[in-house]
Amino acid sequence: MQELIKGLIQKNNTKIMMVVLDGVGGLPVDGKTELEAAVTPNLDNLVRTSATGLHIPVAYGITPGSGPGHLGIFGYNPREWQIGRGVLEALGLGIELRDTDVAIRCNFSTIQEGLVKDRRAGRIPTEKNRELTRRLSEEIKGIDEAEIIFASGMEHRFAVVLRFPEPLEHGSDHVNDTDPQKVGKPPLKPVPANHQSERVARIAEKLIDRIADILKDEERANYALLRGISQVPDIPKFQDVFGLNALAVAIYPMYRGLARLVGMETPPVNGDIREEIEFIRENWNEYDFFFMHVKKVDSYGEDGNFEAKKGKIEEFDGFIPEVLSLKPDVLIITGDHSTPSLMKEHSWHPVPVMIHAPYVLGGVSSRFTERECLKGELGILPAFNILPLALANAGRLKKFGA
Amino acid sequence: MQELIKGLIQKNNTKIMMVVLDGVGGLPVDGKTELEAAVTPNLDNLVRTSATGLHIPVAYGITPGSGPGHLGIFGYNPREWQIGRGVLEALGLGIELRDTDVAIRCNFSTIQEGLVKDRRAGRIPTEKNRELTRRLSEEIKGIDEAEIIFASGMEHRFAVVLRFPEPLEHGSDHVNDTDPQKVGKPPLKPVPANHQSERVARIAEKLIDRIADILKDEERANYALLRGISQVPDIPKFQDVFGLNALAVAIYPMYRGLARLVGMETPPVNGDIREEIEFIRENWNEYDFFFMHVKKVDSYGEDGNFEAKKGKIEEFDGFIPEVLSLKPDVLIITGDHSTPSLMKEHSWHPVPVMIHAPYVLGGVSSRFTERECLKGELGILPAFNILPLALANAGRLKKFGA
Repeated sequence: MQELIKGLIQKNNTKIMMVVLDGVGGLPVDGKTELEAAVTPNLDNLVRTSATGLHIPVAYGITPGSGPGHLGIFGYNPREWQIGRGVLEALGLGIELRDTDVAIRCNFSTIQEGLVKDRRAGRIPTEKNRELTRRLSEEIKGIDEAEIIFASGMEHRFAVVLRFPEPLEHGSDHVNDTDPQKVGKPPLKPVPANHQSERVARIAEKLIDRIADILKDEERANYALLRGISQVPDIPKFQDVFGLNALAVAIYPMYRGLARLVGMETPPVNGDIREEIEFIRENWNEYDFFFMHVKKVDSYGEDGNFEAKKGKIEEFDGFIPEVLSLKPDVLIITGDHSTPSLMKEHSWHPVPVMIHAPYVLGGVSSRFTERECLKGELGILPAFNILPLALANAGRLKKFGA
Repeated sequence: MQELIKGLIQKNNTKIMMVVLDGVGGLPVDGKTELEAAVTPNLDNLVRTSATGLHIPVAYGITPGSGPGHLGIFGYNPREWQIGRGVLEALGLGIELRDTDVAIRCNFSTIQEGLVKDRRAGRIPTEKNRELTRRLSEEIKGIDEAEIIFASGMEHRFAVVLRFPEPLEHGSDHVNDTDPQKVGKPPLKPVPANHQSERVARIAEKLIDRIADILKDEERANYALLRGISQVPDIPKFQDVFGLNALAVAIYPMYRGLARLVGMETPPVNGDIREEIEFIRENWNEYDFFFMHVKKVDSYGEDGNFEAKKGKIEEFDGFIPEVLSLKPDVLIITGDHSTPSLMKEHSWHPVPVMIHAPYVLGGVSSRFTERECLKGELGILPAFNILPLALANAGRLKKFGA
């Protein structure tokens, strides 16, 4: 499908904007979903002249993580391009990963007489974590041919990146987790599953020893367990596949990181919705495509806070006039997945999507809600079809065949 | 999918009729699409007892040419079977292509001191084009082992077919266009991209020289540029896949040509809707499947003539009683793609489809329009699924599995 699209791309001066309300889809509580309960006069108005539908991020019944959720709406089949946990963790901690890198999600842990006593080192305070990773950073700059980069996370979690001098062969990350998953067992050794991953396993083993040596006098955090050893997936670049020069605007590092994986520009932005829109306005002439990410909708869903999620949606609704004042030729509003407050977690439910553009039927959905979008002209569609539709509406796809 | 169907085919005496209103799908102008604005009492009546839906000719966001548009409704995945531009041009000019043929779309052009001065020879009158192709036909009957066939088109356009003594190997048409795309440049030489295409490149080169020699004293049309060099795709035959003995009834040669590519019978017919229906009536006992093509709906759409497109739909509506008097067991009414008057060109929008047959739910769409068909029991489906549904409704598909 991407090959087909790539062959049909034609460039023009149109602007496509995609607003992602993270986790926006919901389920009814007292009969209404968060979107249904929210007062959204601007979205209601916009939806009447938009193409509407529900998108399936990965497949029926499959609950996506943030990685697959975003790949889908970026126009990639998330079943083809998997993002390792180490990579996602490193992106979330703000490390700018390259194709020379292997990323590892690590736990500070407690080891005693060669056996794992606490897999999470008693959930040490984040401040302690920062102190320890600082020490590790100072003492371990490199191992063999790889530069070593540490980034502290919350409590016991941190990330390590092994940066090699040159891009890695496919399969270089096929090394097992060292976490035995149970206390009272010895940690596992990192073992390469193939020839290409031997160097990563060798350096991982030395890294574990170095860390254990540096932390040997720590009471709790005296060891590191390694998980999700992974290299950056070799995803075709957004510019190459879709011909779009893209700017990603997101407050949280993980979403900028995901956008960077497909080659979008990802300068850091502080603030919230207002600052994101203003940042896009300042950069409007420099790009063809704008990805704007609104995180808190999902966060409140994960908290099970129906009212706050509803409120965040209403807050975004208030900014619709600002968004429209940018005059995008095609405006997409959707989410990367559903996060019903009722479930307090990501879910598999299809996600409302609207495409506001001149060449749509419109007139079938009266609100931007799950049940109204179900009536829409886009039907229930795989997420990766949204981007081709946006390109078509922007006049950026030639006719297929004579 | 076709393999699955093929294994389930059972024959009976049912008749399936497919009416294709070319480019019938539209977009709202003043709130209504062409189908919505049209007064269509007969279609309205029929749709209430029909299965309805919208079909996607190729994929979300992809605008189909006539080739892929028809392959889809004929039950083929148009992404698997691509029809070259030369082939489509030759079909459009009425040449009955065979598996021994390579077809080329040509421009009369002006060359001066080895450089292209006018890629279209000043758009010479069609009458002049006819005179020139007649001369070329008389003087060039064959080159090496290939018979050479010329067909004149409009203004500067004509087609050439190289007919070889035996069917061609796959890949024999991998020869570049000779059009440099810009004036002031020399024409390109036809270069074979592989071993199989060497003979086509060799003959194409000699053809260009022969034409240039014959036309050397012409003021404007003194050269030919070659484009879209292509052989007939080796598409599985309609009879073999679907077990249907099929008659194609179309006024325009291109649509007969497309039907012939999948093995339908394609006698020439003159007139319009009335004559097409009468021709089908005369041949009713001889075939299982009838493809009837109504071109002008698309033509008016491409002209941006909303009223005339609406009028052509209303005219067809008036013939519904005639169509029903044939008593088809299954009647499909649809289009090959959308051509909104608003856009004046083919578009990617899903196309209304109705299947009138005894075993349908019905009762959901109140009119044969884009928005009413959206409610229908067929949903939004890939075009190539229409034919299996027709076969099922005709009792021509056995149960799958025990």
